[in-house]
Amino acid sequence: MFTAEVLSIGNELLIGQTTNTNLTWLSDQLTRLGGFVRRAITVRDEIIEISEALTLAIQHHPNILIVSGGLGPTFDDKTLQGIAYNQGLCLRLNNRALNLIRAKVKELNAGRLKMAHIPEGSQPLRNLVGTAPGVHIIVGKVHLFALPGVPSEMRSIFKHSVIRFMRRTLPLGSLYEAYMLSLGIPESKMAPIIYEAMNRFPEVYIKSHPLGIEEGRPKINLHLTSQTNSKQVRDVKAVLISKIRRSGGVIAAR
Amino acid sequence: MFTAEVLSIGNELLIGQTTNTNLTWLSDQLTRLGGFVRRAITVRDEIIEISEALTLAIQHHPNILIVSGGLGPTFDDKTLQGIAYNQGLCLRLNNRALNLIRAKVKELNAGRLKMAHIPEGSQPLRNLVGTAPGVHIIVGKVHLFALPGVPSEMRSIFKHSVIRFMRRTLPLGSLYEAYMLSLGIPESKMAPIIYEAMNRFPEVYIKSHPLGIEEGRPKINLHLTSQTNSKQVRDVKAVLISKIRRSGGVIAAR
Repeated sequence: MFTAEVLSIGNELLIGQTTNTNLTWLSDQLTRLGGFVRRAITVRDEIIEISEALTLAIQHHPNILIVSGGLGPTFDDKTLQGIAYNQGLCLRLNNRALNLIRAKVKELNAGRLKMAHIPEGSQPLRNLVGTAPGVHIIVGKVHLFALPGVPSEMRSIFKHSVIRFMRRTLPLGSLYEAYMLSLGIPESKMAPIIYEAMNRFPEVYIKSHPLGIEEGRPKINLHLTSQTNSKQVRDVKAVLISKIRRSGGVIAAR
Repeated sequence: MFTAEVLSIGNELLIGQTTNTNLTWLSDQLTRLGGFVRRAITVRDEIIEISEALTLAIQHHPNILIVSGGLGPTFDDKTLQGIAYNQGLCLRLNNRALNLIRAKVKELNAGRLKMAHIPEGSQPLRNLVGTAPGVHIIVGKVHLFALPGVPSEMRSIFKHSVIRFMRRTLPLGSLYEAYMLSLGIPESKMAPIIYEAMNRFPEVYIKSHPLGIEEGRPKINLHLTSQTNSKQVRDVKAVLISKIRRSGGVIAAR
């Protein structure tokens, strides 16, 4: 088990232009690796806002802090400036970063040179898909990974560099889960059934998602997860099936 | 112009099970109404986490704070407990809330009664789609609207109650925007073109989104927005088209 936070950077996420699927993907990956994603913050492309959000995330002392977005060549890509400002560091030309960028492009220009300037003491991470390197920096005991906002580049660096790092240094785990679809029991009657099951099996988390009414019957999706105990997930599922049927509900095949 | 923050509540958003499309929809709506969404926070279904995030959002003194999720009948719907804890208020049976719920269901039970207990001093908001009423509470000068996490219910209460409230009390505005698709100019060469245009037309914000390489040519989506000046958006678009063409790029019809 380890703890994680995610910081997403980009105006497009706060004007309704882009949906933050990076957070979905990252929190799925981190959870499956045994991580507990405690909080996620989304801020605009502003150095002060990025710095304030970094301070908030670091206060929680997560093992891993993933920052996505704002690593590109344009003037509104300010993530590394935000990190440097927050930590009182300068941005310095990093020769490894420069070589990674040179290997991807024919010629250098101001924007590409900008991407080679990373906070002093940080390490560039190879980007196999695009040009902007990721950045790994240790802040106190927090391992901060800054990744591009372009989903394919973010995923590639996460898989090649971040997961590899985590496997070396963190007590990784697994995620055990099960889904069930209940028909005929309204959410307010499902509540005590779930509550009782969670008290009996404290290592399993049960989340209910009401999906509206289907042919006059309330439809609820149940999601069972445990990061510690696969047997308890199966046990809870059996208990829930039995209770839902006894309350007059139906389990849809799934 | 007014300012806004969004707080999303739900474990499902932090384990990768659900993508936060509510934030996309809300920030689109708020931006189109003339709002500036400064930051968005996502937390788990925990009273302390909700309270901490509320404190952070309130510190920014937004005109509007939208909270979505955690209003249902189950034990892990803790948004109102989080608000009450944060503000030192008790949850009190609200007769209007109870009547709104009674109008939607045949019988009361513990879960439904829970939804009728809202922070003292707050107002319930009618939910035309589902059962859980929304809640409006004034915290200092911040108007906090707690809405359900089910998208159809959240949207309905936002349109019927929140927008109506904002029209009465806030200086609403409009959003002027334009999109362009550029082919043949890499992002690092686009950067100075955008930078120059934004310096010349400070009321227009230009955001570039690299979309990879198409038939050997870099493809970039440009999004122009202004909350104040529709003419400047058209002027900037003309300037960008001219500069991109002079730099050897092509504007794809759009």
